[in-house]
Amino acid sequence: MRIGRMEQNPIITTDHVKPSRPDFKVVGVFNAGVAAIHDEIILLLRVAEMPVETPGNNIAVPVLNGQDGTVVIRYLSKDDPRYNYEDSRVVKEQERYAYLTSMSHLRVARSKDGIRFEIDEQPSMFPMDGEEAWGIEDPRITQLGNQYYITYSAVSSKGVAVRLAVTEDFRRFERLGLILPPENKDVAIFPATIGGKYFMLHRPVPKSIGSPEMWIAESPDLIHWGNHRFLIGLRDESWDNGRIGGGAVPFLTDDGWLELYHGADMNDRYCMGAVLLDREDPGKVLARSRVPVLLPEADYERNGFFGGVVFSCGVLPMGQTVRMYYGAADEVMACADLSLEEIYRTF
Amino acid sequence: MRIGRMEQNPIITTDHVKPSRPDFKVVGVFNAGVAAIHDEIILLLRVAEMPVETPGNNIAVPVLNGQDGTVVIRYLSKDDPRYNYEDSRVVKEQERYAYLTSMSHLRVARSKDGIRFEIDEQPSMFPMDGEEAWGIEDPRITQLGNQYYITYSAVSSKGVAVRLAVTEDFRRFERLGLILPPENKDVAIFPATIGGKYFMLHRPVPKSIGSPEMWIAESPDLIHWGNHRFLIGLRDESWDNGRIGGGAVPFLTDDGWLELYHGADMNDRYCMGAVLLDREDPGKVLARSRVPVLLPEADYERNGFFGGVVFSCGVLPMGQTVRMYYGAADEVMACADLSLEEIYRTF
Repeated sequence: MRIGRMEQNPIITTDHVKPSRPDFKVVGVFNAGVAAIHDEIILLLRVAEMPVETPGNNIAVPVLNGQDGTVVIRYLSKDDPRYNYEDSRVVKEQERYAYLTSMSHLRVARSKDGIRFEIDEQPSMFPMDGEEAWGIEDPRITQLGNQYYITYSAVSSKGVAVRLAVTEDFRRFERLGLILPPENKDVAIFPATIGGKYFMLHRPVPKSIGSPEMWIAESPDLIHWGNHRFLIGLRDESWDNGRIGGGAVPFLTDDGWLELYHGADMNDRYCMGAVLLDREDPGKVLARSRVPVLLPEADYERNGFFGGVVFSCGVLPMGQTVRMYYGAADEVMACADLSLEEIYRTF
Repeated sequence: MRIGRMEQNPIITTDHVKPSRPDFKVVGVFNAGVAAIHDEIILLLRVAEMPVETPGNNIAVPVLNGQDGTVVIRYLSKDDPRYNYEDSRVVKEQERYAYLTSMSHLRVARSKDGIRFEIDEQPSMFPMDGEEAWGIEDPRITQLGNQYYITYSAVSSKGVAVRLAVTEDFRRFERLGLILPPENKDVAIFPATIGGKYFMLHRPVPKSIGSPEMWIAESPDLIHWGNHRFLIGLRDESWDNGRIGGGAVPFLTDDGWLELYHGADMNDRYCMGAVLLDREDPGKVLARSRVPVLLPEADYERNGFFGGVVFSCGVLPMGQTVRMYYGAADEVMACADLSLEEIYRTF
């Protein structure tokens, strides 16, 4: 399949982003939400930062003090037998996450042509309280009227939960509360009501029984959610047999709602695939990619902070093609144009 | 502390309950929801069943066929190295639940005096579809007007989720959908609106980060839930350092909402304790038990299908005392009268 990756890829790298404080460095700018407003394309970037220097044989982990909103740095010895540092993203203790190695905030970037972006010098949304103490991640933006609703992961020692915020201008942001308790991620709200209700995709991560798979839920008001239904699950022997979850915000085509979702295999290779949902009942699956739509093949997708990852949080539909923005290797932003025909050929 | 355990305890045992089919035996009748209707006390019992006979060196696990609603029995060899049978309640595979050893349904029992119960011969609510394929468990009943709302665990290979049902008469039950996705349990809806909203306690079980702890959420309509907030967590070196969750449906006292909750320690000893919540904002904790209100001390609490458990899903408030119904050792139902004064002494 011909994938129209932009020649300019990666379109945003860590060099383009100013750290939020002088003793921090930006280690990732990825998994951005996407919106069109007036004559601009907005990317709401996830910016991951780490302390510049780590004295001695240590790992530094940044954590927000939920009481006063300051970021404090803790040091863990690389020789401490309690900790496992194999995954560059996290410090594990007995297979569970004890710390994240970086802290993420959200930052606006603006563009006229959708390729060259000017990035704000300051964070747009920064972790604010105890439930965001380990960072805020992976925003997805849904336009409803002239409001832009943003779902994002709020990470803390209490777990990974889903919060909602809203903006009209991408300058002022209002938080609207926690819409799904831990452990949940990858929430994307549909950009229209269906039968008078709002819908969202979500991805619970259960502990004792079950796998990280996609569900759908309904709401009368975007704040309160119910009628949760299982949507699609892992497939053995497939590119998406490890974990799956919502990716881009779904968009309406002549054939139904098209959702570009991410699937990882057992080796943590993250690809993008597609699922087509019924226009009137998005809980009904019409088709699903047998093979990925996009695999991590380019150098900037295969190598980076966490290599072998393509991960989209948002698209711009453009008739028979769709412009997909995506994080590559948990480090940079890239962009590709896909034709609906190419996507349908994976079904 | 003097705990008024009933002399008649256990008030219901497995001998009192007719199996749902002749080739099944009842192995547990416990964790009942409680309601008062007209001149009767209702217990909505969790009834756990297993096949009577298991040929050869096997374990039998019952599972619902979600397509046609029949229960099928699978046989697992006790010698199969993939499985771990140490916990009598589950078959584990690599620390996760591969099967439950029993399947639960819900059954009504009726009483005039609250001690001697007549138990229906047939299940009142039986697992119905794929999302209940491993059973339905631990009902909690909240009266709102002349409607009785029932939250319960729906268990399947997709995880442990929370469903809602409603009845007016405990003869016909209507299912109202899945109100919390996996993994969640121990949901108790408050028996009154507060500031025009419904509230519930719930207990998410996150996988990567976080522990099984209590949260609170709000709803405009009982179906859709949001504004989730963390309520109380585990306490090191305490009787509730392993897992905690809602127990009885909370009730209003002069001092605030009183919730009798369960806490287990690292050795899986399940006790009941109390937490007092603000009358106007039940997300605000006023007091919490330093020591348990009730420990598994009686023989029928210490020994049974899963020994060392007292676990309440419902109470009848009676002025300055409260009658607590509770499952003992995951096998039988017991009852105890507690004075509010005794409970407050644990704060």
